[in-house]
Amino acid sequence: MTTLPPADAALLPYDLWVNKAHSVMLAKTGIIPSADAAKILRGLMAIEKQIASGDRTLDTAYEDVHTQIESQLTDALGIDVAGKLHTARSRNDQVVTDMKLYLRDQVILLTGYSIGLVQTLLALADAHKQKPFPGFTHHQHAMVTSFGHILAGFASMIIRDIKRLEHWSTLHNTSPLGNAASYGTSFPIDRYLTSTLLGFDGPDRNSLDAITNRWEPEADLAFGISVLMQHLSTVAETLMLLATPEFGMITLSDEYSTGSSIMPQKKNPDPLEVIKGKAAFSQGQLMSLLSLGKGSFIGYNRDSQWAKYIIMDIFRECSPSPAVLSGVLETMTIHHDVMEKWCTKSFIGATTLMEQLAATAGLPMRRAKIVVEKAVKYSAGKNSVSYRAMHKALKECNCDVTLSATEVKKWQDPQTILSLAKSTGGPGSKQIAMSLKYMHRMLKKQRAWFYAQQKRKQDALMALNSEVQHILKGGE
Amino acid sequence: MTTLPPADAALLPYDLWVNKAHSVMLAKTGIIPSADAAKILRGLMAIEKQIASGDRTLDTAYEDVHTQIESQLTDALGIDVAGKLHTARSRNDQVVTDMKLYLRDQVILLTGYSIGLVQTLLALADAHKQKPFPGFTHHQHAMVTSFGHILAGFASMIIRDIKRLEHWSTLHNTSPLGNAASYGTSFPIDRYLTSTLLGFDGPDRNSLDAITNRWEPEADLAFGISVLMQHLSTVAETLMLLATPEFGMITLSDEYSTGSSIMPQKKNPDPLEVIKGKAAFSQGQLMSLLSLGKGSFIGYNRDSQWAKYIIMDIFRECSPSPAVLSGVLETMTIHHDVMEKWCTKSFIGATTLMEQLAATAGLPMRRAKIVVEKAVKYSAGKNSVSYRAMHKALKECNCDVTLSATEVKKWQDPQTILSLAKSTGGPGSKQIAMSLKYMHRMLKKQRAWFYAQQKRKQDALMALNSEVQHILKGGE
Amino acid sequence: MTTLPPADAALLPYDLWVNKAHSVMLAKTGIIPSADAAKILRGLMAIEKQIASGDRTLDTAYEDVHTQIESQLTDALGIDVAGKLHTARSRNDQVVTDMKLYLRDQVILLTGYSIGLVQTLLALADAHKQKPFPGFTHHQHAMVTSFGHILAGFASMIIRDIKRLEHWSTLHNTSPLGNAASYGTSFPIDRYLTSTLLGFDGPDRNSLDAITNRWEPEADLAFGISVLMQHLSTVAETLMLLATPEFGMITLSDEYSTGSSIMPQKKNPDPLEVIKGKAAFSQGQLMSLLSLGKGSFIGYNRDSQWAKYIIMDIFRECSPSPAVLSGVLETMTIHHDVMEKWCTKSFIGATTLMEQLAATAGLPMRRAKIVVEKAVKYSAGKNSVSYRAMHKALKECNCDVTLSATEVKKWQDPQTILSLAKSTGGPGSKQIAMSLKYMHRMLKKQRAWFYAQQKRKQDALMALNSEVQHILKGGE
Amino acid sequence: MTTLPPADAALLPYDLWVNKAHSVMLAKTGIIPSADAAKILRGLMAIEKQIASGDRTLDTAYEDVHTQIESQLTDALGIDVAGKLHTARSRNDQVVTDMKLYLRDQVILLTGYSIGLVQTLLALADAHKQKPFPGFTHHQHAMVTSFGHILAGFASMIIRDIKRLEHWSTLHNTSPLGNAASYGTSFPIDRYLTSTLLGFDGPDRNSLDAITNRWEPEADLAFGISVLMQHLSTVAETLMLLATPEFGMITLSDEYSTGSSIMPQKKNPDPLEVIKGKAAFSQGQLMSLLSLGKGSFIGYNRDSQWAKYIIMDIFRECSPSPAVLSGVLETMTIHHDVMEKWCTKSFIGATTLMEQLAATAGLPMRRAKIVVEKAVKYSAGKNSVSYRAMHKALKECNCDVTLSATEVKKWQDPQTILSLAKSTGGPGSKQIAMSLKYMHRMLKKQRAWFYAQQKRKQDALMALNSEVQHILKGGE
Repeated sequence: MTTLPPADAALLPYDLWVNKAHSVMLAKTGIIPSADAAKILRGLMAIEKQIASGDRTLDTAYEDVHTQIESQLTDALGIDVAGKLHTARSRNDQVVTDMKLYLRDQVILLTGYSIGLVQTLLALADAHKQKPFPGFTHHQHAMVTSFGHILAGFASMIIRDIKRLEHWSTLHNTSPLGNAASYGTSFPIDRYLTSTLLGFDGPDRNSLDAITNRWEPEADLAFGISVLMQHLSTVAETLMLLATPEFGMITLSDEYSTGSSIMPQKKNPDPLEVIKGKAAFSQGQLMSLLSLGKGSFIGYNRDSQWAKYIIMDIFRECSPSPAVLSGVLETMTIHHDVMEKWCTKSFIGATTLMEQLAATAGLPMRRAKIVVEKAVKYSAGKNSVSYRAMHKALKECNCDVTLSATEVKKWQDPQTILSLAKSTGGPGSKQIAMSLKYMHRMLKKQRAWFYAQQKRKQDALMALNSEVQHILKGGE
Repeated sequence: MTTLPPADAALLPYDLWVNKAHSVMLAKTGIIPSADAAKILRGLMAIEKQIASGDRTLDTAYEDVHTQIESQLTDALGIDVAGKLHTARSRNDQVVTDMKLYLRDQVILLTGYSIGLVQTLLALADAHKQKPFPGFTHHQHAMVTSFGHILAGFASMIIRDIKRLEHWSTLHNTSPLGNAASYGTSFPIDRYLTSTLLGFDGPDRNSLDAITNRWEPEADLAFGISVLMQHLSTVAETLMLLATPEFGMITLSDEYSTGSSIMPQKKNPDPLEVIKGKAAFSQGQLMSLLSLGKGSFIGYNRDSQWAKYIIMDIFRECSPSPAVLSGVLETMTIHHDVMEKWCTKSFIGATTLMEQLAATAGLPMRRAKIVVEKAVKYSAGKNSVSYRAMHKALKECNCDVTLSATEVKKWQDPQTILSLAKSTGGPGSKQIAMSLKYMHRMLKKQRAWFYAQQKRKQDALMALNSEVQHILKGGE
Repeated sequence: MTTLPPADAALLPYDLWVNKAHSVMLAKTGIIPSADAAKILRGLMAIEKQIASGDRTLDTAYEDVHTQIESQLTDALGIDVAGKLHTARSRNDQVVTDMKLYLRDQVILLTGYSIGLVQTLLALADAHKQKPFPGFTHHQHAMVTSFGHILAGFASMIIRDIKRLEHWSTLHNTSPLGNAASYGTSFPIDRYLTSTLLGFDGPDRNSLDAITNRWEPEADLAFGISVLMQHLSTVAETLMLLATPEFGMITLSDEYSTGSSIMPQKKNPDPLEVIKGKAAFSQGQLMSLLSLGKGSFIGYNRDSQWAKYIIMDIFRECSPSPAVLSGVLETMTIHHDVMEKWCTKSFIGATTLMEQLAATAGLPMRRAKIVVEKAVKYSAGKNSVSYRAMHKALKECNCDVTLSATEVKKWQDPQTILSLAKSTGGPGSKQIAMSLKYMHRMLKKQRAWFYAQQKRKQDALMALNSEVQHILKGGE
Repeated sequence: MTTLPPADAALLPYDLWVNKAHSVMLAKTGIIPSADAAKILRGLMAIEKQIASGDRTLDTAYEDVHTQIESQLTDALGIDVAGKLHTARSRNDQVVTDMKLYLRDQVILLTGYSIGLVQTLLALADAHKQKPFPGFTHHQHAMVTSFGHILAGFASMIIRDIKRLEHWSTLHNTSPLGNAASYGTSFPIDRYLTSTLLGFDGPDRNSLDAITNRWEPEADLAFGISVLMQHLSTVAETLMLLATPEFGMITLSDEYSTGSSIMPQKKNPDPLEVIKGKAAFSQGQLMSLLSLGKGSFIGYNRDSQWAKYIIMDIFRECSPSPAVLSGVLETMTIHHDVMEKWCTKSFIGATTLMEQLAATAGLPMRRAKIVVEKAVKYSAGKNSVSYRAMHKALKECNCDVTLSATEVKKWQDPQTILSLAKSTGGPGSKQIAMSLKYMHRMLKKQRAWFYAQQKRKQDALMALNSEVQHILKGGE
């Protein structure tokens, strides 16, 4: 059981950051005297230090974190100094700026977890890339593939999910500070400076936009996370089915299973079910966010404050999911014998048989399909098409084709099928190696982006610190 | 009232395109003889011509458009030739490829409409950039802005929506052809060739991914469209309120209004209400698409076929909305006198008065706010803060500040407020001009992308045509 | 492939009904002369006859079905007579009334299909009520139950879904006719009369309510259908898993399976997948309907017209689902041997063993659980707890309990477990028989309601007909 | 800012209740010795007392509330006694039972708040039932109505919402205790007894149903609350528009308004915006709940645990909304002069003029409409149709009707229009009085239901207490 802190607890560090950047800007533009700014900055740093040391924390007696910090600053410095901090801004742009900084950090965090999952999947895909697995469509056996091919398919999805997080950054990494209540201010503020000190790409170009659409960066992220969660739910559902007694293809580790309050033998795939549950959860939260925006009038509307609570719930519930799934995947036991056993059953090799019949005998595919369909029927009760059935079917279809018993058997053999899988993106040994290489290349780029984002934040904080030091030293 | 054609009607041209590209590839890789490919291509072109001339159309007696075309080809050429068309592919990858081509074209179409709307908004924003307008927050008068600033805010949103359409292309413009049923094929197909002939960036690198996630490109688009529609619903709601008798700030043209079956005097903003309705509609459709993906097992699942119907409904209902809104905006009458009248009422100038008090007298903002709050109270019954009230408030707060009656009046005057609006992104004359310039620059890039997409499609079609001609002439 | 008719096609019969009832009322209250009403009624009946005979149909050239009928009446009778039909009403209340009649009929239809499904389920549950089945929790074997118990569980859900349809009727079977545009009319109309002639419980008591909430009866139904569809998706998912090669517990009939375009051996559970797809679809449609209502201003809003299209889509897509599922269930082959085989594996009998240990030896449940958990561990590699393991575990836990080998075996035997299942609602033979009896009683009530609804409609139509005849004969 | 307690905090009292009822049943059926049951009951009562006195509270170190109570009981009594409490049940049925008790209490609470809101609305509707108000459709003036008629329309919606809460009770007030893990138990439990001691209508008749559908009672409630919230959002939106400076028809009290951090003059309708935000929130939560159920396999699935968190979020956020809205309504100032002023503008009286023209002159409605449409056009620039315009229009339409200037004026006069409003459900004085009487009757029934629910809970608790006392006194 967990107690949830107020949403604003997550904003504490960001509110301090924004306050410091704003104070520096007010001083550098001459809107407030440098001496006052220096006092304010010292006050903010004192609060920051107290929070870091645990002496001060979020106080739920205040309306919100913004009020708390300004009030505590006022307690320390008096209104004649602290009362200048809120010059040329509104709580509207302050909240939106805090939230963007928070969202940006959460994006980095989630990117990190997702990269970790792709790494796990690619490593496993490589290890099992030639291990036969009964590929499904419609929950029925379709064609032989490899277990590595399935895992690579999962990696491929998540790589796209990480791209969506990058796109978020492209759309929303602009600074709302200075939008004020929605219509700007008459003070000669320098929005480019605060944008730089906060690590943004630049200021918003219309002060109304971001405030009216306070739900939108949240919805963009909620959508990206929801698609990720649906993908993870597919991985989870697949693993859960493979782990049923009937499938028996994998066994989850004890670490990622739980027992029952009543049934002594139970070993439940709880973490996978939880991922499915959170996939459902994320859908609804996205819906709430979009609905917040529907039919909203221009300017700030209080309704949109719920975007804050909703997106924080999404992050808390969903962010760790890729890491959990990595753990499940890394610790599970894979029963290749069972997987392979099913690769010789229920006529799963019929498609390759048909393709090879068409390829070697020059039979039109549609004729080859009719032949093999008949052969399947004539092999009823067996696991694969027999030579006799094939012979009978060919004859009945007036196909003047001679096929050896060896060929009929070979083309339905799992390892042969894998060796014949020549198409790009398929489970053939060369093809899957190339695919994995491609995905590693993608992942490398994404890792570079991930580090660049972290560095950028550090650069902004260092730039801010240098400005702060300058002001503290009495410079302007 | 409209009769809706079957969803597959929209896929007819794309299915022919895919069939031709696939036939060319089968011939060039030697999977089927060039002579057969030539016959198939001629057959497809004959069907294409008949459709273009109206002699042949979608026939609902067939299961789907894919079955129809192959059947009609078989009727014309016999199974021994036509039966080779479906070599090395499945209906699964065929449908997904058709759908991607369809979605791509719809993205271009919607981008065009959206660019048109941004153009309209920027032109209007420029025309009205210095016309006072009572800016709202919480549905209450907040600060004086200009009507152009509001319109520019709308443009700013839509520019972001167009970016989302570009991102879609980044994520999804890969070729699924050759994924076959989900697990590739044993034929030595050339997926790079078909990718080129269809205008894709390259083939999918894992054959399972796109087939399992047949709902995802649709969901990505549905999300982008839903955010666009929520933005349009904000524009619609704003215009509807401005057009009420009570606001009286705009009058919609007769062209974009409708009458009543009973009330002789009515002039209803139907197109705007419809946009709000469709914003609600788009939310739910997105939800359906995400739910399709939840907990889906690997490989093709028939459930995902509903993605086709849902996304087509979204396009049909929502795509024209930006164009409709452009029409509403271009033809409405704007009552600047009414807008301006409200810019001198309900103390809307109080914020600038407060800011200027702080700025000129060096008063901390928090003190200045207390003073003006008192002054507002002392001016009860009036429309703006009076000199007398201001004087009394300053005195009461022990502020040793002398403010002239002219200053008190001036700082609450709409035109003065606009001239003082110095922050980037705000309604100041210089600031808004810069913002509009910036947005025009963005739009230029987006227009370039829009044309590049169209050209790319043409290039692919020309490359295909040249390959087809080569085969028809007996080459290869 | 199917072509969809315009939504209004479904309203044709209801619009004629409403027109006739309204005309009768106008005549009986003296608002229009009886002679004119007689002409109008004859004109409406002529149109009705032409439609019935196929000579006249919905004409998409008209704006909507309401306009079409009035226009065609005007063509026939001239404006001086036909122009009196729209007296004392608005298109708003006309549409809402048509829709309620349509919805009511659809509710009856869906109730019929759902009753059919419950019947099928109860019959199958009875047939298989003592056939062992491995009950699951968390997708893992939990306890032995019977296959009939599972099917009875499905019936239990659907019975609740039918109740929801009855509740819809309780909430919404009131007459909106006479609400006019939203604010009533100055004509002395008799809303009780039209209510009776249309089979409603009575007129709306506030003319604003139903018009403002034109999305609500639709949302109520969409919710009821969505819950039903989620239930059906659980049935579908369960059947799909039981039909995998790995489970192999049922085989779907060919009638309810489909083949593949490429894989000759495939037999796909398409109808079940489609039901899952439509469960996802129904969720989103409900969302759209609720969103239509969010933040709507008083009185009619055009946005709400989308409620009509959405609910019609839901009915078209979802209504037949219970009947389809009945077909799947009635035609599937059940492999009891496989089901029973799994009832002796993976320690599925451990819970009953534990319960009986506690019951016979007077051991606290928590101790018994520890013992059996140990015994399960000591039986690793086996399918059930061995006597030796049990003995060792009891000893280790210092339990002075003597258990015979027979007892250890018996309490894990499927048939014994079923015979011991004594709790109400469980799979015990007496218990399940009582449950089925209870559900049959519920179903009987629901069938009575179903017939009462149909009779009520016939009564209203007969009452209307008698009034019409009276007017045609020159009465009143 | 608020800190949220763990979800399970809300379940503490219910878990104790369930534990006590279960212990009584175990003793009365002889499953455990009465002496042990007496010890367990004393232990539970001790914990209950400690919680009531604040000495003991929820301890987040435990996995959940169920574990905590059993552990603390075990600490106090030892496993040989406390270890018997969990006999013949599973955590699955325990949680579902706790949740149903919680939901039932929340339904009663919400019913109480909603009844309060209807009372407020009916009282206000009565007070203002003859005060003219410009009725809207399409956000445009439609017809004159009374402000009371609008308020009565709101009451009418909420009455239906309360009915939905009653329906919830009809569907879900059955006892899940004894369903165990999903498949019952081999102990001879008495589910009818526990059902009675917990105030349920009876035990579930299939042990699988409620456990598989652990999301369903939650979804049913979430839907009911979401419709309620959409209705409240309509009330909120309407009040917000009436409170804009432009409408100026109401002024919200200071108590239900808030200020701005920057704009000294602001008075924001925050509580109304929050209601709109929560209406959006509730939609998404419902969606999450439905998605949890999609495609779920039989038996308990851990995914469904999220239903608990989601429904608790909904109650916390939405339950107080009706009470808040009551406060807003009761304290707002109504500007009847402004409302009435708009009842003589923008041709709002044209419909009644048209109706009376048709009524008195026997003109077909469609002709009368053409005449008044022309007259509106000829009166351009005026607020109502002039005699001259009417005269000209009648002549042009060749209508041989003589209308006096007095009539033309009168039929457009607000008070006359109200006095002419003769239709049931309309704003006429007699009609609205009847409607209000009807609604009061409905409300009386609902209040009776509300009290009956509370009494029923008390009765169950008293019955339990009496059984407990009996066991404590050593009886059986």
